[in-house]
Amino acid sequence: MAEATSRRTDPAVLVERMLQGDRLALARLITHVENRTAAVPQIMKAVHGRGGASYVVGVTGPPGAGKSTVVDRLTAHLRAEGATVGIVAVDPSSPFTGGAVLGDRIRMQAHALDAGVFIRSMATRGSLGGLARATGEVIKLLLAFGHDWVLVETVGVGQTELDIMKLADTTVVTLVPESGDAIQTMKAGLMEAADVFVVNKADRAGAPALMAELKFTAHLHYASATSAKDIDWEIPVLSVQAQGDVGVRELLTEVRRHRATLERAGALQARRRARLRGELETLLLEALRERVARGLTGGALRAKLDEVVAGDLDPYSAVEAMLPMISLDRA
Amino acid sequence: MAEATSRRTDPAVLVERMLQGDRLALARLITHVENRTAAVPQIMKAVHGRGGASYVVGVTGPPGAGKSTVVDRLTAHLRAEGATVGIVAVDPSSPFTGGAVLGDRIRMQAHALDAGVFIRSMATRGSLGGLARATGEVIKLLLAFGHDWVLVETVGVGQTELDIMKLADTTVVTLVPESGDAIQTMKAGLMEAADVFVVNKADRAGAPALMAELKFTAHLHYASATSAKDIDWEIPVLSVQAQGDVGVRELLTEVRRHRATLERAGALQARRRARLRGELETLLLEALRERVARGLTGGALRAKLDEVVAGDLDPYSAVEAMLPMISLDRA
Repeated sequence: MAEATSRRTDPAVLVERMLQGDRLALARLITHVENRTAAVPQIMKAVHGRGGASYVVGVTGPPGAGKSTVVDRLTAHLRAEGATVGIVAVDPSSPFTGGAVLGDRIRMQAHALDAGVFIRSMATRGSLGGLARATGEVIKLLLAFGHDWVLVETVGVGQTELDIMKLADTTVVTLVPESGDAIQTMKAGLMEAADVFVVNKADRAGAPALMAELKFTAHLHYASATSAKDIDWEIPVLSVQAQGDVGVRELLTEVRRHRATLERAGALQARRRARLRGELETLLLEALRERVARGLTGGALRAKLDEVVAGDLDPYSAVEAMLPMISLDRA
Repeated sequence: MAEATSRRTDPAVLVERMLQGDRLALARLITHVENRTAAVPQIMKAVHGRGGASYVVGVTGPPGAGKSTVVDRLTAHLRAEGATVGIVAVDPSSPFTGGAVLGDRIRMQAHALDAGVFIRSMATRGSLGGLARATGEVIKLLLAFGHDWVLVETVGVGQTELDIMKLADTTVVTLVPESGDAIQTMKAGLMEAADVFVVNKADRAGAPALMAELKFTAHLHYASATSAKDIDWEIPVLSVQAQGDVGVRELLTEVRRHRATLERAGALQARRRARLRGELETLLLEALRERVARGLTGGALRAKLDEVVAGDLDPYSAVEAMLPMISLDRA
């Protein structure tokens, strides 16, 4: 009995089963990642490097832009071609904006009965800091499972969402005429994040003006020499009515064209390698953070901390005094 | 001429002049912080420990809640008492929500002509990561200048805003009936951040229901034993119409009651000390981050990085291999 339990929960066994196509094992592994259990390093090591032939598409945009419907329709098109799809919907909900994930997810339930589609929602638990990393790990699990496509939808706004979009090979930014003062869409961060613009609910008033403005901005961005570009790509702006499946096929075509452009330039591999470097740096810094916290519990570092907390020393001077006590690369 | 210029821009001279009440010097020091110049450590060391008798109030809430008007009216009351007020308005604007800082600031211009009030807006430049720290440094400058009160207003939503609120001694969360599904206000993060709730535009439909719900939630939070509390404080919920100055005096009374409660329990000093510890940890980690980035350019750490980027090693295994190469606390 105890052995049966351990077989069911042993991370190594879960990975093995997941790789054989066991969806329940996949769900349990994702739960490990979400709960940040001690098994996460072991799990991530075991799935490393799998799913490299698959493709990750991010769909982002402000609340109410119809991102879930876009994801839903993209999924239908991909399924019609026989491709399998993993979907992770992330809600980095702030205490103020909240999230509409529940309602959106209900619409996705048509796919929930399809064994070729795996859907998982992730919400913020406590700090947002770890959400981008956890999402990256869930994407890797969905890829390792063998999904041909992984779609990442973020509900919400802000830096976390942009961090999550960096995990995608192609990022689709979805806007609607109501998205607010169109000038806001020009902000540099958004331009840097977007590979394709979708103007959804394109039958509404204001859609042509938003399309025109986005096209103009995209063209300016393309023409400017300020940002280093590894591919020759002007962000296309698509008119979509996802609810009625209008323009979704064209969206998929643009995503594929972006993928082909990346691959032709060798940029897909280069970007994925840069992502690995980023992951390594993040993990290393997290480990150092823990070590700093431990270091501050005793010894010379602790003595400096005590001076700061007592108000006798400012933090900047303390750090200057502490850094020589710390050595990197003893080798 | 060159000497005159250097006298005008030398950070040590700027600090000296600022401490003598020179507002232009204060503005220039804040610009140093915003631009993250190399002089920041020197400046922050020089102002360390000043302004400890002053008090920092944060005002936060969703866009459209009337935070600027609340800050404006609080300022008027404090000025009527002869107190000086420093105001920092932070806009951690996401690419999607944008910010309404400009329009809000125009309303504040009545105070801009008052030498007893210093107002500064800060917006995101690039990464949100450093915004909370920069805001903390600006608060210290406003305190060192000798302001009796510093008011911190954050426009926008999300984790950055909550991080900024941790810099305040008392945090006022401002909501309006339109703030969205009231259930969202119950989110744990918001409850943890708030010391006082303001229901602004309290003449609008929905205000009584929002008040009732907030009171109920505040009481549940107060009664629950789940969160460690250093003071005996049930979050008050105030009905305010800031535009008409209704309820603002009561708000100030509640802020003062919160301050007195903190002081009586010794919690004000304890919290400020904890904040110093946090600052130290953040600075130390930033220094380590730079060192890690440098370390990855050569030696044994670089060799591991290359293995990861080549896809031959997963990041988790790499970190395990790298950590023994790094030593903290050589002393």
